Amino acid sequence: MGDSPLTVPRVGIVGAGQLARMTLQAGISLGLTVRVLANSPDESAALVSPAVSLGAPTSINALSAFAATCDVVTFDHELVDAALLRQLEAAGHVLRPSAATMAVGQDKLFQRREAKALGLPIPPCRPVCGTADILTFAEEHGWPVVLKARRGGYDGRGVWVVTDVAEAGRAALQAQARGLYLLAEQWVPIEREVAVLVARRPGGQMVVYPVVETVQVDGICHEVLAPAPVPPALAEEVRAIACRLAVALDVSGILAVELFVTGGKPLVNELAVRPHNTGHYSIEACATSQFENHLRGVLDWPLGVPEMIVPAAVMVNVLGRPETGDLGARLPAALAVEGVRVHLYAKASRPGRKIGHVTAVGADLAEARARARRAAALLAGGLAFTDEA
Amino acid sequence: MGDSPLTVPRVGIVGAGQLARMTLQAGISLGLTVRVLANSPDESAALVSPAVSLGAPTSINALSAFAATCDVVTFDHELVDAALLRQLEAAGHVLRPSAATMAVGQDKLFQRREAKALGLPIPPCRPVCGTADILTFAEEHGWPVVLKARRGGYDGRGVWVVTDVAEAGRAALQAQARGLYLLAEQWVPIEREVAVLVARRPGGQMVVYPVVETVQVDGICHEVLAPAPVPPALAEEVRAIACRLAVALDVSGILAVELFVTGGKPLVNELAVRPHNTGHYSIEACATSQFENHLRGVLDWPLGVPEMIVPAAVMVNVLGRPETGDLGARLPAALAVEGVRVHLYAKASRPGRKIGHVTAVGADLAEARARARRAAALLAGGLAFTDEA
Repeated sequence: MGDSPLTVPRVGIVGAGQLARMTLQAGISLGLTVRVLANSPDESAALVSPAVSLGAPTSINALSAFAATCDVVTFDHELVDAALLRQLEAAGHVLRPSAATMAVGQDKLFQRREAKALGLPIPPCRPVCGTADILTFAEEHGWPVVLKARRGGYDGRGVWVVTDVAEAGRAALQAQARGLYLLAEQWVPIEREVAVLVARRPGGQMVVYPVVETVQVDGICHEVLAPAPVPPALAEEVRAIACRLAVALDVSGILAVELFVTGGKPLVNELAVRPHNTGHYSIEACATSQFENHLRGVLDWPLGVPEMIVPAAVMVNVLGRPETGDLGARLPAALAVEGVRVHLYAKASRPGRKIGHVTAVGADLAEARARARRAAALLAGGLAFTDEA
Repeated sequence: MGDSPLTVPRVGIVGAGQLARMTLQAGISLGLTVRVLANSPDESAALVSPAVSLGAPTSINALSAFAATCDVVTFDHELVDAALLRQLEAAGHVLRPSAATMAVGQDKLFQRREAKALGLPIPPCRPVCGTADILTFAEEHGWPVVLKARRGGYDGRGVWVVTDVAEAGRAALQAQARGLYLLAEQWVPIEREVAVLVARRPGGQMVVYPVVETVQVDGICHEVLAPAPVPPALAEEVRAIACRLAVALDVSGILAVELFVTGGKPLVNELAVRPHNTGHYSIEACATSQFENHLRGVLDWPLGVPEMIVPAAVMVNVLGRPETGDLGARLPAALAVEGVRVHLYAKASRPGRKIGHVTAVGADLAEARARARRAAALLAGGLAFTDEA
């Protein structure tokens, strides 16, 4: 009786950050050897992948050569220009999500338009170009005005809250100098921020994760509380919104939706068509992690159960601080915190950089939060945010 | 402010089977790039490691060269001769577990002697050489007699249950032809089999996992039920036995202890000083998996909480069958079974070979078992064991 080989699809990820690293880790269980396209061999996912292609995600040659080694190509980030993605599709490569879906994922204006077309609640907003446009918007909607780069902004970068015409002018100049297109948005009093993940197959099967609360500081996600302590009706409304977006955008893999809650009602803020920081808690807390379900989704395989298997979980990001130094030296102390799982991204520490996260599960959010904050503070060093809050 | 590099220890695993594969997977969370010494680049762990050394675990040159690239060396199997391990230690390499501990882990007679020296319950047994010895043993303890190869037996290989002198003679000849040393053991009526894991640091910190029930068919582990449906007093006794063995053997990393239950009392059967098939359930079911705690233990880092975070979990091994064919083609159907996590080892399917496992969590053992059996049967194909039982 001869051996029967194991045939599994060749999945490639464009980008080699921590999202690719954790997706690759999830793929090991499924028998996969996930390939990555990395800028350099010391990137987070490249360090743990035996199948690394080096090249820039802005180079059609690098992308084409990489795609030729894959049955399915997916993404760690939004850095590949949609025109290049369409070229890859035209050449017969399978992109999941598709170039069309990625184009929406890359542009905050397109995201808002999709939401608006579905009749979903969004803050009043429109594209603006220069101070005069911003002033007109402010006259209609009042100050302050929130200005956001349509593309490329993340972790609070590419966002300005301007309170008068002078600040608006400075922001417009900065944006122009950096080649950014701007979206103006009415400032809304945010009661809390929530997020939700949907995993979807090309054929349409879809599963929805629990709604989580996200705690942002300066536009950077610091903590995720799962499940979000919100009324069930609000959570259901948020889940329904995410499902409608996933269908409209023809998502494959993970869709993450971030929302504001204002006046007790949700407003759609941003989307990401990939695994997302607000979903890291799912590794420990859910029957199937966002990373495994992203792979299942892009491979058109049956999706796993998204429900939580523990009462509560809190994820805290580890951001580099001036005091952090060598994270490896800090790891043992953090591992000593009971009930915490540490995830390091094998990145050099730099102030403000996401270099890891911790997730604690517990009987309730308070217990999990205390554990996670303690471990994150031990990792980051100094007087971490997590001590102050 | 410059970057602070991340310094993490270089961990190497001798052997590249599924245990190394899952250990490497766990190491990704800890910021580690785990190295493996593989016989060939298509072995289970070699397929997913970016740091593969090729070489035989029986070659001192291969072992020395590999150890020179590692801060700590640990093991996927018991195939390295203890004399070679002592040579590596003499050359200054850090082996965890140590050569002395590995020597006990490799030899069933040494294991029994350790247990006996501690006053722990074991089946009557002694080393035998040839038919006359076996006959003498049978006269004392009665037929049948269980003969076990002291080294190298696993998954039912290297075990003979002989009922008379003719069978004993044939087994003795087979053993001699294969260069095996034998242990004779009194046959005991086994009510059930249980197993338990201990994780331990060199400094002595130790955590104990829940006791599980193992269902063996022809000496091969088919199912693991966590927690074992046994009286609490029995479970406590089993956990205490395992802790005493871990201390006596000066274990670092995981110790797995397999026991028989007979007359309601435990008898120590076998030990393994590495992650073990009976502990795979811990990936989904426990706060910290055996693989992560093996790494923490061998690195002398604080150990993680071993307790279960779900009410029940059942692991079922996927053994190749003549009908299995390409496991990749069978994977989607298995993923559709609710609440099951699949682990494929990226091995060619061959009848009787362990090519993966599935773990289901559930509200109780019956629910988890039904799910896990269904998924395993879909993966293996044909009329799997799991349909019949």
